[in-house]
Amino acid sequence: MTQAAYDPNNIFAKILRGELPAHKLYEDEATFAFMDIMPRGTGHCLVIPKAPSRNILDVDTAALAAVTATVRKLAIAVKNAFSADGVSVHQFNESAGGQVVFHLHFHVIPRFEGVELKPHSSKMEEQDVLAANAEKIRAALNS
Amino acid sequence: MTQAAYDPNNIFAKILRGELPAHKLYEDEATFAFMDIMPRGTGHCLVIPKAPSRNILDVDTAALAAVTATVRKLAIAVKNAFSADGVSVHQFNESAGGQVVFHLHFHVIPRFEGVELKPHSSKMEEQDVLAANAEKIRAALNS
Repeated sequence: MTQAAYDPNNIFAKILRGELPAHKLYEDEATFAFMDIMPRGTGHCLVIPKAPSRNILDVDTAALAAVTATVRKLAIAVKNAFSADGVSVHQFNESAGGQVVFHLHFHVIPRFEGVELKPHSSKMEEQDVLAANAEKIRAALNS
Repeated sequence: MTQAAYDPNNIFAKILRGELPAHKLYEDEATFAFMDIMPRGTGHCLVIPKAPSRNILDVDTAALAAVTATVRKLAIAVKNAFSADGVSVHQFNESAGGQVVFHLHFHVIPRFEGVELKPHSSKMEEQDVLAANAEKIRAALNS
């Protein structure tokens, strides 16, 4: 089973290089977290490794451990930031698996009783809404 | 935000203690993988840490790193075992987040172009089907 090569011009690589803007939430040596611009729910964010990998099938275990430690940080932060009832974490591999951008990423989505998720990659959120939600998450990360 | 306590009588804890059967796929010092008995697609399996944690909100980072390393092993194995086009990984926290069993677990689901996932926790699969799929995954893990 061959794995397609990593494309360094994917949009998350461009965000990491500062070539595209993002609502940054968290950064450490190995990982980066930012708002999903087409959120499936309030506070939907993304966590990625800085090292290039297409998805979970080709990532090395050190990068994966770093990114999931940051996923945990963000899961706790979004639950607190929005007084959420739960958190869903999704990680998609290849188009058939739901992947749209081919740089490994984890979706971290606050969940609320009785509120269904919107479809994946459906509608761009207003920038001021993303900025306000990002501020809440950063505050929760720092508290 | 308080987190509910871990209940040692959840069904995954009983599987770990050998009090309930499971179609075992993989085991190491810190993790265990087995077939989901209500699969959302062919080859749907689960990866759990041996250490007790309710979900991602209370797991320690060492256990999380171990379990995600095993998730990666299983993602590669199920893709190969079923010649899948992709893999979806889901991890749910609290009822609102989609969690049904309150021991941290990752769903690893082989995906095929044009095939939607069945609903979560909907229908029990036949034991012989689970056993045959488990055998394919174990063979892929060992190859």
